Amino acid sequence: MRIDAKEEKTFLKKVLAAYHFSDEDGEFLADTLVDADLRGISSHGIQRITWYTNMIKEGTIDPTNKPEILRETPTSLLVDANKNMGQIASGFTMKRLIEKTKKLGVSIAVIRNSNHFGTAGYYARMAVKEGLIGIATTNTRPLVLPTNSLEAFLGSNAFAFTFPAEPHPFVFDGATSVVSSGKIQVLAKKGENIPGEWAVGADRKVDQDAQRVEDNLSTIAFSDDRPDGGVLTLGGNLENNSNYKGFGNSLVVEMLTGILAQGSISADTNKGKHDFSQFFMTIDPSLFGDLDTLKANVSKMFDRIRNLKHLPGTEIKIPGDREYKRYAENQKQGVLIDDKTAAELAKIGDEVGVKVPEAL
Amino acid sequence: MRIDAKEEKTFLKKVLAAYHFSDEDGEFLADTLVDADLRGISSHGIQRITWYTNMIKEGTIDPTNKPEILRETPTSLLVDANKNMGQIASGFTMKRLIEKTKKLGVSIAVIRNSNHFGTAGYYARMAVKEGLIGIATTNTRPLVLPTNSLEAFLGSNAFAFTFPAEPHPFVFDGATSVVSSGKIQVLAKKGENIPGEWAVGADRKVDQDAQRVEDNLSTIAFSDDRPDGGVLTLGGNLENNSNYKGFGNSLVVEMLTGILAQGSISADTNKGKHDFSQFFMTIDPSLFGDLDTLKANVSKMFDRIRNLKHLPGTEIKIPGDREYKRYAENQKQGVLIDDKTAAELAKIGDEVGVKVPEAL
Repeated sequence: MRIDAKEEKTFLKKVLAAYHFSDEDGEFLADTLVDADLRGISSHGIQRITWYTNMIKEGTIDPTNKPEILRETPTSLLVDANKNMGQIASGFTMKRLIEKTKKLGVSIAVIRNSNHFGTAGYYARMAVKEGLIGIATTNTRPLVLPTNSLEAFLGSNAFAFTFPAEPHPFVFDGATSVVSSGKIQVLAKKGENIPGEWAVGADRKVDQDAQRVEDNLSTIAFSDDRPDGGVLTLGGNLENNSNYKGFGNSLVVEMLTGILAQGSISADTNKGKHDFSQFFMTIDPSLFGDLDTLKANVSKMFDRIRNLKHLPGTEIKIPGDREYKRYAENQKQGVLIDDKTAAELAKIGDEVGVKVPEAL
Repeated sequence: MRIDAKEEKTFLKKVLAAYHFSDEDGEFLADTLVDADLRGISSHGIQRITWYTNMIKEGTIDPTNKPEILRETPTSLLVDANKNMGQIASGFTMKRLIEKTKKLGVSIAVIRNSNHFGTAGYYARMAVKEGLIGIATTNTRPLVLPTNSLEAFLGSNAFAFTFPAEPHPFVFDGATSVVSSGKIQVLAKKGENIPGEWAVGADRKVDQDAQRVEDNLSTIAFSDDRPDGGVLTLGGNLENNSNYKGFGNSLVVEMLTGILAQGSISADTNKGKHDFSQFFMTIDPSLFGDLDTLKANVSKMFDRIRNLKHLPGTEIKIPGDREYKRYAENQKQGVLIDDKTAAELAKIGDEVGVKVPEAL
């Protein structure tokens, strides 16, 4: 079914209030989820709410806690998320980074003791709305195998980068691994096969059975004694296809998050603590030139790329193109809610006495 | 043959002095080339000297020019390389960035009107020697195809990242594309085939004939009316293997270099100007915690990864492991010079009256 995005947000705010989030925190958290649904990134939208409310019931998340600044300089912040949702500490942090960068041109922050933060792109877009370059990364549960390894160790480690452009900003946002585990979950739900070199079994041979891979991943990500196999780094299964570069990219995120924040590295987040770490950076491009000129130059480059000769039946899309198109469409037609999620929302609505939005 | 690294450096300094580099610039430029040879990155070592001297003869490079600071803030630098070698402006810039970061914790710089700068890793290692995180990137001539494109547009866009660690720093250094064109050149010289999904012909079908690919690339990189085909982004030929993520990484470098510096983007560097742009960043990790603790934590993570269960007959190497091993070996046994390069060095030595180091 499709529901109206405004009604989706109202519903979420009421549910979050019932779970003791403050009005301000609930408003922000709801906005990150609705925004993901509007952009067609359903894996990071309202379908996460059941997971979140379960973590609150278990005590993994405390929705009344506030983020705390542990160390601060004119160009940096170290923040403790205090076991609240990653969104709360990330929004708190990004707002302050933007102010710092408006003064000194560049600033960086790390967050420890955090949690799932939704899409990395949301925070990078907060920066680009202010004419800044935004960078956001997070570590995750361990799902990804280093080059030649039989065991998962690295997170899927989302990375987002934004740059001001017209008609919409450049928004690159996704797992540093070949795919996120969410993409495999979606195929498993649909009963479809994996169409590429995404994951391997215990023998490090490519496995394209989405359900089998998903079953293995859910054990890997949540058990102490994890089975072998997992998701591949960008570059696929073979060293000859430079999968060690994808491994390097994933390691860079591990260092910028768990290591710098002195939280857990991805490999240790499945041991009951569930403490993710995040890294953010904002850069003012006008340190180097007139913002309008830079925007015009980059937009011209993107147009030239979109118009390169290409394989028949395909398009060349710049990162962000698809998201902004869907955003405009879904504001009109409503956001898509799958049947399983619709049933989950009905259950949560009953629990807290909030009416689920009607199908459009 | 193998030659002694110290003698290699003396030879290079004398040649560069004959080509009117100042003593200080010649010393630095020689050091970057010898350092690459010591680390086994021969593609970026002394074998480049013929290309460099040819560019000086053609007037593409002016070895007497000095880098010029166009804009400066406490956290940033915009530098004009003034058509001298990229190494000169890059060393100049990185020294100043390190000072800025020691004061304010983070700083960034871009260089325009630059040239080939050797290995990106050299500059990132300048930062890590001072206990800082170092980042260095450059654009290049156009060699790489966006997802679905039949035409090359992007550079191979080297990216380096360093992080303090024991027994040696983490050094991730390489093209953002699946391979650099240098790696294909080496195979073509040896008459070997390409072992992976690295490059495509005009039909965007994978071509593993290294000589044919190399012939095509040298036309693509240096002509206005370039033929189709080229090097693939990380992720290979298929959108189903997420090659759009490699495309995104390459685009990020285009924005940080040619766009921010207001120089040429890679696609336009083959039109007689030959002006590359570079981007540098340094971050002080002790903004967030005690440096020794961070080093111990990251080194422990690397050791755990090296010791993961792995495919029989393979090793799990952390980026930098191979380089530092070769560096120690080559300081003892000398650096390897292939026959073609040895002949070129003899020719250059004759021209300027400098004796080529003898084979060990």
